[in-house]
Amino acid sequence: MNLGRITGQVRIVGAGLLGASIGHGLRAKGVDVILHDASRSNATLAIDYGAGRAPQSDDAPTLVIVAVPPDVTAEVVARELAAWPRATVSDVASVKVGVLDELIALGVDLDRYVGSHPLAGRERGGASAARADLFIGRPWVVGRGEPFRRRAVEDVVIELGAVPVAMSASEHDNAVALISHVPQVVASLLANRLAGASEAAVALSGQGLRDTTRIASSAPELWVQILGANSGPVTQILRELQTELGVAIDALEAPDAPGSRRAIAELLAGGNVGVARIPGKHGTSKHFSQLVVMVDDKPGELARLLTEIGEAQVNMEDLRLEHSPGAQFGLAEISVLPEKEALLISELEARGWKIAETLA
Amino acid sequence: MNLGRITGQVRIVGAGLLGASIGHGLRAKGVDVILHDASRSNATLAIDYGAGRAPQSDDAPTLVIVAVPPDVTAEVVARELAAWPRATVSDVASVKVGVLDELIALGVDLDRYVGSHPLAGRERGGASAARADLFIGRPWVVGRGEPFRRRAVEDVVIELGAVPVAMSASEHDNAVALISHVPQVVASLLANRLAGASEAAVALSGQGLRDTTRIASSAPELWVQILGANSGPVTQILRELQTELGVAIDALEAPDAPGSRRAIAELLAGGNVGVARIPGKHGTSKHFSQLVVMVDDKPGELARLLTEIGEAQVNMEDLRLEHSPGAQFGLAEISVLPEKEALLISELEARGWKIAETLA
Repeated sequence: MNLGRITGQVRIVGAGLLGASIGHGLRAKGVDVILHDASRSNATLAIDYGAGRAPQSDDAPTLVIVAVPPDVTAEVVARELAAWPRATVSDVASVKVGVLDELIALGVDLDRYVGSHPLAGRERGGASAARADLFIGRPWVVGRGEPFRRRAVEDVVIELGAVPVAMSASEHDNAVALISHVPQVVASLLANRLAGASEAAVALSGQGLRDTTRIASSAPELWVQILGANSGPVTQILRELQTELGVAIDALEAPDAPGSRRAIAELLAGGNVGVARIPGKHGTSKHFSQLVVMVDDKPGELARLLTEIGEAQVNMEDLRLEHSPGAQFGLAEISVLPEKEALLISELEARGWKIAETLA
Repeated sequence: MNLGRITGQVRIVGAGLLGASIGHGLRAKGVDVILHDASRSNATLAIDYGAGRAPQSDDAPTLVIVAVPPDVTAEVVARELAAWPRATVSDVASVKVGVLDELIALGVDLDRYVGSHPLAGRERGGASAARADLFIGRPWVVGRGEPFRRRAVEDVVIELGAVPVAMSASEHDNAVALISHVPQVVASLLANRLAGASEAAVALSGQGLRDTTRIASSAPELWVQILGANSGPVTQILRELQTELGVAIDALEAPDAPGSRRAIAELLAGGNVGVARIPGKHGTSKHFSQLVVMVDDKPGELARLLTEIGEAQVNMEDLRLEHSPGAQFGLAEISVLPEKEALLISELEARGWKIAETLA
């Protein structure tokens, strides 16, 4: 029985992380999911995990989702459009312009095609890593197309708990270059500088460096593909970055020359403006007050803290536990609505907690 | 009464965040702290807050800590060395070579001088933001000098709960350029790219971009000073970065040219190596297993999760709560020792928790 808004069959081509996760999510909503993969063993594995069923001779999918590697996506989309003359066909490739250009070059009629891209993933891939909840709360870009074809794709996005975002292929590729692909390159460039550093130097590292370089631990194979497929928008932004880096170096080479300090200040002030635009929790860029509470590094202590925050009827907007190097306790950084800060401080101090600091 | 290892008077010059925090910390250990500031109102404020006492005619400090802005540090150190002919004099300026060069230029006898730098700070400054626990668990670099003079400074570092790290002035400046100053410039350069971005683009942002740009929210005034004072080591590393950025751009401009994909892969692989060197909790760079558990976004839920983790006798090595944009629940990313992962998963699932994913 189908509990949701999707009444027809959904055929998924490609039983990797994304394809199998979509399968799990839709089956959980009672959708009849047909799973196909060029590799019989991939398909069998995903079906064994419950991501869908094997194709049958009488299949009549109303929607086909192509979830194969970017370099073969266009070819498979074209084949599926031909195989199912009435079905809507979509794909989930992480770069969209290249796919569209290939389809046009293949002379395919695009009336029934709507490209898409869920901004969701994991550090591991494959059907065995697939999860029905992979897309919950994540943005999912849905491209241009016939309104009712787009609606068919958006129904899947909504069923899977994701948030549909309408964008053209080039809008999408420029956006992900900026918010995902360039940060990856920059984090890797920065982390590369650490490879030859002394032990003594890296021992001074703090949370700032950890955060700035965290994504540099991503898998090279995957990122070589992504960066190669979106090289145009990525290089354009990297060139802007290169220009500003040159300005910064010139200013720092002669910090006392006229205009140097102003140039450095403008770089830093521009960074303040940019970072303030990034949405935080629930897609807002709202600012919260932060308390840092000292917590003994033993089981149950943090739980006790959070229980008592709950008793104070204060909802944490965010929480982060940082351990000071060498210290036998952690610092719990708690974000709360500004109007709750004073209440929480008094409640916690009354219960004997040590507030290490409060950040504006 | 003095409970600790410091028996003599400690004179602190400069009642800002660092000076006043050192004062609070030492007074908490029963040390007689003399507080002086060129600004009488700064001094009075810090003394009102309990960071120390006003100077008296019969003061005889055995240790003087200069905590004034970098550009006047050397001059004040020289004056204090002359004023107290038997005292050890230290400073806490965040850049060390410039101070040392100035002292040498002033012809000062450096037998009683030992430079230092606590790697601690806050987003707010001033005596009103000072805290006795500011330095707990943080590295505190102590420079070269007479062994018993260095010991006098290390005693303060240890009393304040910090971890002494022995380094020369140039070792220190090169280290902080790498782990703190260059990451600041890079995060600001990246965040600058967001200033002109479309709402739709930034709406796709995820945790990766948030982490990579977080420190770009730092105060420009402070950083203009720091970067200017350490411009040599910073520009050297930025130039290396500029060269590698150029290589990346060349490779991405022709991703299908021979060697391009290899160049990109090497950049990414080098980043993996670099990030693996950054110490995590307790100064180790040990790897932990991570579970992501879905937690309803309401007071008490996370506390219940952590209570049950405690009941399972598993110690969390790290914790991070991430809220999916638009979702009414959080994802708690929990790091545990790899050998504890299987136990914790079964214990949590037995208690009805949903494990969203496990990361390798």
